[in-house]
Amino acid sequence: MIGRIDHIGIAVSDLASALDFYDGALGLAASEIEEVPDQQVRLAVIPVGESRLELLQSTAPDGPVGRFVEKHGEGVHHICFEVDDIDSALATLRAAGVRLIDEQPRVGAGGRRIAFLHPRSAHGVLIELSEKPRKAEA
Amino acid sequence: MIGRIDHIGIAVSDLASALDFYDGALGLAASEIEEVPDQQVRLAVIPVGESRLELLQSTAPDGPVGRFVEKHGEGVHHICFEVDDIDSALATLRAAGVRLIDEQPRVGAGGRRIAFLHPRSAHGVLIELSEKPRKAEA
Repeated sequence: MIGRIDHIGIAVSDLASALDFYDGALGLAASEIEEVPDQQVRLAVIPVGESRLELLQSTAPDGPVGRFVEKHGEGVHHICFEVDDIDSALATLRAAGVRLIDEQPRVGAGGRRIAFLHPRSAHGVLIELSEKPRKAEA
Repeated sequence: MIGRIDHIGIAVSDLASALDFYDGALGLAASEIEEVPDQQVRLAVIPVGESRLELLQSTAPDGPVGRFVEKHGEGVHHICFEVDDIDSALATLRAAGVRLIDEQPRVGAGGRRIAFLHPRSAHGVLIELSEKPRKAEA
């Protein structure tokens, strides 16, 4: 059901300084900076092969990324996998006893249907699933 | 210089239980279990698109993964990017003032030339570079 790593979300304290490293020193090209008020972050998107990195800077200390950085410092925040059918994926995971943060898919960036699994069920990794756009909608 | 995400290393306490989740519930297929005495781990390799996950279980409490799990619990341990020319990549990073764990490439799993950057220079992420096998050697 999983086709590829869609993106890796990396929590940073300061986007400009993180871009100095990823875009500058590592030579990756950051293509966009977006505000995602819903998730209380500003993010820079860096394509890498068929995947991308998303550098996430919190815009609110009590937002999900703000709390993560406060507790853990900067670092990998989540991994997102692309799935063909998110309803079926969530049903399978639920049947396997996996704890879900989102019991139902919700609409994420770019209009995609996404859902997060609970890191306690995923060996400490916060996993996001993102549904591949269907042909008729693409 | 970076072509793709080669793999994501995930530190786990118990490989069998982690495979129940990744292989069982998430439906990914783990292809190999290897002992890597050098890194004091046993690992399961899970291909995902052009990348893979490596589930790492420590075989020694004072090994790098053992210490990570002791300090942080289970979770993402490192991200590995594939580069065309690791010597040139390390020279560029050194010139940019990035702290390196491996000043010179060393030989990793599968005979590949690898090097780790220091997470302090990479916004909390432990980054590994792995050189693409050259044609003549492939």
